[in-house]
Amino acid sequence: MNLYFAPLACSMSTRIAFYEAGATAQFTQVDTRHKLLAEGGDFRAVNPIGQVPVLRTEDGWLLTENAAILPYVADRFPEAGLAPADPAGRARLQQWLGFIGTELHKAVFTPLLDPAAPEGAKAYARSKTASRLDALQQHLAGREYLLDCFSVADAYLVTVLNWAPYCGIDLAPWPAVAAYQQRLLQRPSVARALGEEMALYKEEQRHRAQA
Amino acid sequence: MNLYFAPLACSMSTRIAFYEAGATAQFTQVDTRHKLLAEGGDFRAVNPIGQVPVLRTEDGWLLTENAAILPYVADRFPEAGLAPADPAGRARLQQWLGFIGTELHKAVFTPLLDPAAPEGAKAYARSKTASRLDALQQHLAGREYLLDCFSVADAYLVTVLNWAPYCGIDLAPWPAVAAYQQRLLQRPSVARALGEEMALYKEEQRHRAQA
Repeated sequence: MNLYFAPLACSMSTRIAFYEAGATAQFTQVDTRHKLLAEGGDFRAVNPIGQVPVLRTEDGWLLTENAAILPYVADRFPEAGLAPADPAGRARLQQWLGFIGTELHKAVFTPLLDPAAPEGAKAYARSKTASRLDALQQHLAGREYLLDCFSVADAYLVTVLNWAPYCGIDLAPWPAVAAYQQRLLQRPSVARALGEEMALYKEEQRHRAQA
Repeated sequence: MNLYFAPLACSMSTRIAFYEAGATAQFTQVDTRHKLLAEGGDFRAVNPIGQVPVLRTEDGWLLTENAAILPYVADRFPEAGLAPADPAGRARLQQWLGFIGTELHKAVFTPLLDPAAPEGAKAYARSKTASRLDALQQHLAGREYLLDCFSVADAYLVTVLNWAPYCGIDLAPWPAVAAYQQRLLQRPSVARALGEEMALYKEEQRHRAQA
């Protein structure tokens, strides 16, 4: 499988899933600002919207959307136990992937992280932040993971929460969320993915500064 | 099963799924503006974020997020064929549910439909509209449905596209999308759900005007 990714973007959650599963995968870096493949070429030919992640499966077809890629990868490596198999567990997994994607990623973080977003869009995102983190705090208090054990939903959530300091969100008022994040950052798969992508991110920033 | 819904909100997609399946379900109306159950009581006790849909399953537990509820309902009525069962088909279903939820619903329609959204948030949403509808146009050209046959992803998409005229989006520049919408509106399950919820919506508007 080949994952089109951008350093520290939401695609990092799929890298974490691969590392959890001990899986071999290719990683193709994308400059999502300029919609170019790092090795050259128009990324819009892969994904017309120009967003990561895109997964090229072993059968050669392309899959987009974290809430589709993450369960797909989990199912390819069932021995890693990254997704529940029973219908209720599966539904709860998709619920959390949906919540993270719609309520946190798109409603809160995307406008706050985007330098091109107007101030009104950022204010609108900030107006939604507390209620979303309140819901997360309520759920995570007394829990180690979103579900009964580590799943691809945790891989997505720790990736998204990692953006908080970059857009002025201090998690301290939500102590269960802050503790969850710190705990997950200690996990070898997460620490490895974050370390590698942070290095790639800094390299990309250096290149942009020189350009 | 009991669906907490608001008239013409995204929860209508689950109503369509129930009608497709010929299933018996309860429908509990919610005033999402005031976070109240129509029959009285605080809806936040059901969902702290105050959003529909919420599904109370036959086992009594609560499920949120369209991308979780719709496949769950589809799986409860497999004879209706509302969701593919093979891994690749399933992944593509979740991809479309993810795309509709993140790229259309949250990124475009939520800010445009919300009277409380600042102009900057609406401008940001408008800046994303064309590329999202372009992607949809490209996919739907020559296709009848998002997947090979009608699925819960179509139930979600027709529900979301129904909001276009309420926020100044004319689908004419995307003829495959406009034709898809018109075709889906003829589908008995969709026509019935839309007719019933339109009546409830108008009644709610009348009540609000009198209040």
